[in-house]
Amino acid sequence: MKYEEMNFAKLDTDREARTGFPEVIFCEGKPDEYLLQIYKKLYEKDGRVFGTRASVEQYEMIKAELPGAEYDKVSRILKVVSVNDVEAGSTEETDTGAAPYIAVCTGGTADIPVAEEAAQTAEYFGARVERIYDVGVSGLHRIISKKEVLQGACCTIAIAGMEGALASVIGGLVSNPVIAVPTSVGYGASFGGMSALLTMINSCANGITVVNIDNGYGAGYVATQIYRLAKN
Amino acid sequence: MKYEEMNFAKLDTDREARTGFPEVIFCEGKPDEYLLQIYKKLYEKDGRVFGTRASVEQYEMIKAELPGAEYDKVSRILKVVSVNDVEAGSTEETDTGAAPYIAVCTGGTADIPVAEEAAQTAEYFGARVERIYDVGVSGLHRIISKKEVLQGACCTIAIAGMEGALASVIGGLVSNPVIAVPTSVGYGASFGGMSALLTMINSCANGITVVNIDNGYGAGYVATQIYRLAKN
Amino acid sequence: MKYEEMNFAKLDTDREARTGFPEVIFCEGKPDEYLLQIYKKLYEKDGRVFGTRASVEQYEMIKAELPGAEYDKVSRILKVVSVNDVEAGSTEETDTGAAPYIAVCTGGTADIPVAEEAAQTAEYFGARVERIYDVGVSGLHRIISKKEVLQGACCTIAIAGMEGALASVIGGLVSNPVIAVPTSVGYGASFGGMSALLTMINSCANGITVVNIDNGYGAGYVATQIYRLAKN
Amino acid sequence: MKYEEMNFAKLDTDREARTGFPEVIFCEGKPDEYLLQIYKKLYEKDGRVFGTRASVEQYEMIKAELPGAEYDKVSRILKVVSVNDVEAGSTEETDTGAAPYIAVCTGGTADIPVAEEAAQTAEYFGARVERIYDVGVSGLHRIISKKEVLQGACCTIAIAGMEGALASVIGGLVSNPVIAVPTSVGYGASFGGMSALLTMINSCANGITVVNIDNGYGAGYVATQIYRLAKN
Amino acid sequence: MKYEEMNFAKLDTDREARTGFPEVIFCEGKPDEYLLQIYKKLYEKDGRVFGTRASVEQYEMIKAELPGAEYDKVSRILKVVSVNDVEAGSTEETDTGAAPYIAVCTGGTADIPVAEEAAQTAEYFGARVERIYDVGVSGLHRIISKKEVLQGACCTIAIAGMEGALASVIGGLVSNPVIAVPTSVGYGASFGGMSALLTMINSCANGITVVNIDNGYGAGYVATQIYRLAKN
Amino acid sequence: MKYEEMNFAKLDTDREARTGFPEVIFCEGKPDEYLLQIYKKLYEKDGRVFGTRASVEQYEMIKAELPGAEYDKVSRILKVVSVNDVEAGSTEETDTGAAPYIAVCTGGTADIPVAEEAAQTAEYFGARVERIYDVGVSGLHRIISKKEVLQGACCTIAIAGMEGALASVIGGLVSNPVIAVPTSVGYGASFGGMSALLTMINSCANGITVVNIDNGYGAGYVATQIYRLAKN
Amino acid sequence: MKYEEMNFAKLDTDREARTGFPEVIFCEGKPDEYLLQIYKKLYEKDGRVFGTRASVEQYEMIKAELPGAEYDKVSRILKVVSVNDVEAGSTEETDTGAAPYIAVCTGGTADIPVAEEAAQTAEYFGARVERIYDVGVSGLHRIISKKEVLQGACCTIAIAGMEGALASVIGGLVSNPVIAVPTSVGYGASFGGMSALLTMINSCANGITVVNIDNGYGAGYVATQIYRLAKN
Amino acid sequence: MKYEEMNFAKLDTDREARTGFPEVIFCEGKPDEYLLQIYKKLYEKDGRVFGTRASVEQYEMIKAELPGAEYDKVSRILKVVSVNDVEAGSTEETDTGAAPYIAVCTGGTADIPVAEEAAQTAEYFGARVERIYDVGVSGLHRIISKKEVLQGACCTIAIAGMEGALASVIGGLVSNPVIAVPTSVGYGASFGGMSALLTMINSCANGITVVNIDNGYGAGYVATQIYRLAKN
Repeated sequence: MKYEEMNFAKLDTDREARTGFPEVIFCEGKPDEYLLQIYKKLYEKDGRVFGTRASVEQYEMIKAELPGAEYDKVSRILKVVSVNDVEAGSTEETDTGAAPYIAVCTGGTADIPVAEEAAQTAEYFGARVERIYDVGVSGLHRIISKKEVLQGACCTIAIAGMEGALASVIGGLVSNPVIAVPTSVGYGASFGGMSALLTMINSCANGITVVNIDNGYGAGYVATQIYRLAKN
Repeated sequence: MKYEEMNFAKLDTDREARTGFPEVIFCEGKPDEYLLQIYKKLYEKDGRVFGTRASVEQYEMIKAELPGAEYDKVSRILKVVSVNDVEAGSTEETDTGAAPYIAVCTGGTADIPVAEEAAQTAEYFGARVERIYDVGVSGLHRIISKKEVLQGACCTIAIAGMEGALASVIGGLVSNPVIAVPTSVGYGASFGGMSALLTMINSCANGITVVNIDNGYGAGYVATQIYRLAKN
Repeated sequence: MKYEEMNFAKLDTDREARTGFPEVIFCEGKPDEYLLQIYKKLYEKDGRVFGTRASVEQYEMIKAELPGAEYDKVSRILKVVSVNDVEAGSTEETDTGAAPYIAVCTGGTADIPVAEEAAQTAEYFGARVERIYDVGVSGLHRIISKKEVLQGACCTIAIAGMEGALASVIGGLVSNPVIAVPTSVGYGASFGGMSALLTMINSCANGITVVNIDNGYGAGYVATQIYRLAKN
Repeated sequence: MKYEEMNFAKLDTDREARTGFPEVIFCEGKPDEYLLQIYKKLYEKDGRVFGTRASVEQYEMIKAELPGAEYDKVSRILKVVSVNDVEAGSTEETDTGAAPYIAVCTGGTADIPVAEEAAQTAEYFGARVERIYDVGVSGLHRIISKKEVLQGACCTIAIAGMEGALASVIGGLVSNPVIAVPTSVGYGASFGGMSALLTMINSCANGITVVNIDNGYGAGYVATQIYRLAKN
Repeated sequence: MKYEEMNFAKLDTDREARTGFPEVIFCEGKPDEYLLQIYKKLYEKDGRVFGTRASVEQYEMIKAELPGAEYDKVSRILKVVSVNDVEAGSTEETDTGAAPYIAVCTGGTADIPVAEEAAQTAEYFGARVERIYDVGVSGLHRIISKKEVLQGACCTIAIAGMEGALASVIGGLVSNPVIAVPTSVGYGASFGGMSALLTMINSCANGITVVNIDNGYGAGYVATQIYRLAKN
Repeated sequence: MKYEEMNFAKLDTDREARTGFPEVIFCEGKPDEYLLQIYKKLYEKDGRVFGTRASVEQYEMIKAELPGAEYDKVSRILKVVSVNDVEAGSTEETDTGAAPYIAVCTGGTADIPVAEEAAQTAEYFGARVERIYDVGVSGLHRIISKKEVLQGACCTIAIAGMEGALASVIGGLVSNPVIAVPTSVGYGASFGGMSALLTMINSCANGITVVNIDNGYGAGYVATQIYRLAKN
Repeated sequence: MKYEEMNFAKLDTDREARTGFPEVIFCEGKPDEYLLQIYKKLYEKDGRVFGTRASVEQYEMIKAELPGAEYDKVSRILKVVSVNDVEAGSTEETDTGAAPYIAVCTGGTADIPVAEEAAQTAEYFGARVERIYDVGVSGLHRIISKKEVLQGACCTIAIAGMEGALASVIGGLVSNPVIAVPTSVGYGASFGGMSALLTMINSCANGITVVNIDNGYGAGYVATQIYRLAKN
Repeated sequence: MKYEEMNFAKLDTDREARTGFPEVIFCEGKPDEYLLQIYKKLYEKDGRVFGTRASVEQYEMIKAELPGAEYDKVSRILKVVSVNDVEAGSTEETDTGAAPYIAVCTGGTADIPVAEEAAQTAEYFGARVERIYDVGVSGLHRIISKKEVLQGACCTIAIAGMEGALASVIGGLVSNPVIAVPTSVGYGASFGGMSALLTMINSCANGITVVNIDNGYGAGYVATQIYRLAKN
């Protein structure tokens, strides 16, 4: 196994061979100079780069050097795609066949940024995604109206802040795994998402596992792992 | 305003006049001698006594001196009723009219002791109660099958441990207040009920207020206050 | 049951029929574009909109499109009222009859923003409110001088930060329910209101239930539910 | 959808049709009388019962009425199997084909009870399991010697107490999902497993999701969901 | 400055000269052999010993060797007094003059053990004490009826569990210092007294300082320091 | 007892008669308009005003209307003194006699703002103060060199952040009360002062009581109460 | 690198070669059968075994099979030594030369069990130890009287519960590393040693590092690592 | 022992004689005027000054008065070196001999600022350092490729945020002490580094001790203490 020594970083160039997934960059907090070098190194090696939690300023800095850079304000994903990819359209890299698919659900509108991070991550890794937003448990008829889409998915990502009850309700409706993502949406005793995390970890429903608060990327990654097992 | 000085306690004999509710005894942890004196003093004054969180040993000690003592193992309520009450039957003190009523719901079977503390407290104070047990959110068809009973209640007591999502789901179905009671049922990161408490405090549904972990008595008290307002 | 699909949101248009309360918007953190669309959709449907936790910037954005928008800096409520409402005066939508009424109390001056959110929410839903501000327990004569107003209320909203003892003292004085609202007022070990929340949850007084930190809206909602039961 | 009303419980008899998994009983804390009725009702309906977190006393009580009861002291699983199952041998209900399989790993010897709950749950639901015990990160050569078994699994259950670093190390070695189970093994600042839970939730490795402390059953359930997707 | 070396302990024999207070033994958790040696050494040196948090078993062990041992079950104080003290009566060591005095108050009956530890500690150190028990804030007329006794004290010890609001109310009534003692009385979210501790630390009243949960001894010590300053 | 009703506040004009201390204003977070009215009302009534936690902006606003306003940047105290006071010099209001006095100590330089709030509060209330700064326990010779000043004080205010060990060390050296003030100085696991608060609450030394994090005012208030008892 | 596979455990037989330290057994919570097999296997391999946190019952079980077993009630260490070791006397395995040595200090008598676990662990690994017990900071003259012994040590283990200030004071007196061990000694807000741990982690003194609560073994291990570096 | 009194600070001029280490300044939060005086006083006394956690603004202020000031943006260290030092080159003050050396490792790129604070502190105190960055456990081959450098070090500083597993893995590979530094790198349930701190404190590996979150300075200090013992 090997890696690329960059002094301030050791790029895990063995990762794709070992795990089937390319390196993804967590942009938040990385100094500009380091981030730029990493983007350039990966672009040179793979012809494309995918980063999460990027700011507009980071996008502009990368864009100046790598013109293929694209930024989505909602999900804060900063991609660099090759010219060929752009011409072919971004849908090509995503599986659009009839089955299987990942359902990405949110309790409210404010959870959508985390949901888009999850959904676009899974799509980048080649999975098909169905989005079901704003189906929180305080109006049950909304989630029930989507029951069939949920039950058809190979796995569901349930994203909610505040009290985070969405995961338990979905867990009771489906037969496939539910990946629960607590979000920092809320105030007061929500403690930046800790309350929702505890709700999901203590769920009375079966089939629920949990990732870190606001970790849409992590949920999209695991969902893709499951999608690949379901597909093959 | 006045009280009865007992050295180790000041019985709030003014309470019923001031609040409309008689004194109730929290038995847990009270030394035997003190507890007995309090039961005797209240029985002498009112002809009946109602205590919560009592042990079998406390029941036997009280029973030896006050033969009208009755103990319910599930709710741990230790009552003393007068001879007249016993002859007339305990149902007489409870309102059995068509309306209004309090709905008492639990997420699981293990929450029933807290539910019975709540239900019997409300009944002792003269309210009518409907019990709906084991309707946790992981099998939504159970709670949905009870929707009409819930919607007819003047208020609902929602009792749940683990992740405590029951309150939010009920809150979305009804138009009257929901009193949420977190329970200490659970393990691991349930932290003795703190996780359920946080869930309920952060509920995305409207109309939900919360009492302390396992505080069935407190929920029954408030529900009776609301019942009385609804009745008059 | 039904809802209005807006892609980023599913407006619960069934809510008023199901619960007797119109949809209310939690403005904080909603992207401008989403917030504007929701305000416009609700205004179109109902002729009025009521939002909480709005900023001055959000008010100006909404005002530019919906001239009936009104903003209260203290409570941070952003309403849109129809032309007819404005002409008739805002008092018309509030019940001003002799009885019943909701008492809204604060421990200190700094709790007033939460109190106004609670009071104006209840008034928007048609309830009558009496305000009693700055009656914290460190100067008992202040709250005692208001005892009769408190005892006449169908329910009391007790709002306090720091140590939050106000709810227990009021609970001992009245016979109707007390809805306790911890606030984030304080410093050091107040932990953003968690200390006051724990005080209120552990209250030795009866008849007290608790909502989330700074949740004036939630308290006003439940108080209105109780007010309606008391009124009918 | 339907359920069986037992007063103290509503058996979710619709569950197997809805989710593909039979009802499993969480025995801990259930009163003897309730537990016995539930075991009898399920045995009558399905011809077999599976319960977790059972005590020796509960086993003896069930055994007296249902002679097919079997108890495993390590995992605390209390099964009732039909006569036919016993004759055929317990291996028959488990998939022994070449692939796929679930890897169940522990950091230490003290984590084995949770691991056996997970492994036997998965086996009960028909999955094939490989056990890899005592491969904690303080002696890396142990886990590295098992790398190939790990990489061949459709998913891995990583079980560890104390600092819970096992999940991150495994996550870096495999391409399929890792279900992390924190255990309450440890002392001092391990806080009954909370430290390990936080480690796993914050893992720098990809592909890791987390269940509640000591929740071997939950991990075995999700692993089986993934196993079924991988198998089909 | 000097101390007595006992291998397992270094008795601070300089303490009385340095601080004006004799050494007091915290008995809980001390091995029998060590405790006995310490009691004997101090008795030999001073002719009397005072220990807190003692068990009945410890009392019996000490009594067998030091016949002057006396034990109070409520406060769990284990004293050894000299023959002369016994003959003279225990009141002699306590100041019974008209002024000043320490007021020791509790919120409820269950707080009395902590109150007696505080009161008897102060009396052992020579101060005069007035006891005011069961004056919790949910029945304000009780504490108000004792206002004059409180206002006459040179300092007040306010002892309460659950929400611990007693200290704030007393702080508003008096001009001298209030030493607040949170107790572990309570359940659920009282967290073994942490909730009461936070209430008292965040008190909106002036003149309040706080000691550890259930630390009656510490409160009695400080109160005596203040008493001595007030007396001289 | 009486108060001055100001709508948004009820000035406790009875306070000085009841407690011997004038009203003090906590400025932080008070809206400008409210703050100004309170300052003006108190100045009108008493001829002087004392406020804590004031900002430079608040000072400038008050100064514009009340020219006698004075602001100390370190302690953030905002006083208004009458013309007579200014002429007479601020030392006149402070007791400069030989005895008694309050010792105000800090562990480090960064704790000085809290210390000055404490010291100037005590001086405003008429007490004499000795300042001993930067005597943290990591260089014991510094505190030991001040032992005599400490032992001569009627009480000591011990102010420290980080691990807060200063209070225990002082507690072992003196015979009079120690008021411990944890500060928010520190980083990482100091949790905004909570670590220091816990250190002080758990102190193994006698005679220590604790106030809220950074609560210099509260410590100065209690110290003055003790000073007055010692003086009379 | 290699290990011994025992099914329930993988003995790290490579450890001594890799780290210079033999395997040590953490006995607490290990099932009897597993513990016995591990002791026998290690005794067979190395001729001696060293285990920590053992109970009397475990000692008796091991003793029955391995007659060389020795148990120390205070430290709870369960050793098996070979016949030759016993004849030669236990002092032989410990370095008794003039220098260097490890100082093991405690704040109080109740911390001695943790101190003995640390001291005997270091001695088992061949280091020389000096014990200094009951030198808590509330009587500074005790620790100061031992200053020279402390300053001569190559490293110091500072063991304290309650507020744990001992480490900071020692850190200020010596030039070599201080290993701080918080203990679970205390009550109330000591939170089982968490308060002392936070004190030590936030120490204002230099040269202090911290191990887990009550982890005498871990401290003895690191101290020996440093001792070996100092000796060579 | 002596110190230099500066009113707002007592410079511990005795420190170097007592501990072998010169005074180091923690710059963060120190008012400009105080900081400048301290830098000038130390420069005058020692001819060089070393400060941590400095801002660019503080650097510019110091530079204006002490032209020898140097600032490193990554580590935030603000040094003043004498003219002679500058001419001789900064490497001269660092030991560059063959052995021993300190290994400084990080889990990721974002931990480098803390690592540089540690490394440059140790170098300032005269130790030799080897840097090994970005060797987190999710790609084990990176750390394993550096095994020999780690095993050659006299001690290792292991710096990691998020789940902090790096320390345990290194602890299993080396025979010398590991000083673990949790960092605040992470989000969600990392709680500003508390999660990594708990991981490290609970490590299953031997030889690990922990310092405060982000405390690179403290780790560099202790590592130098060990380096000196190893060197002599």
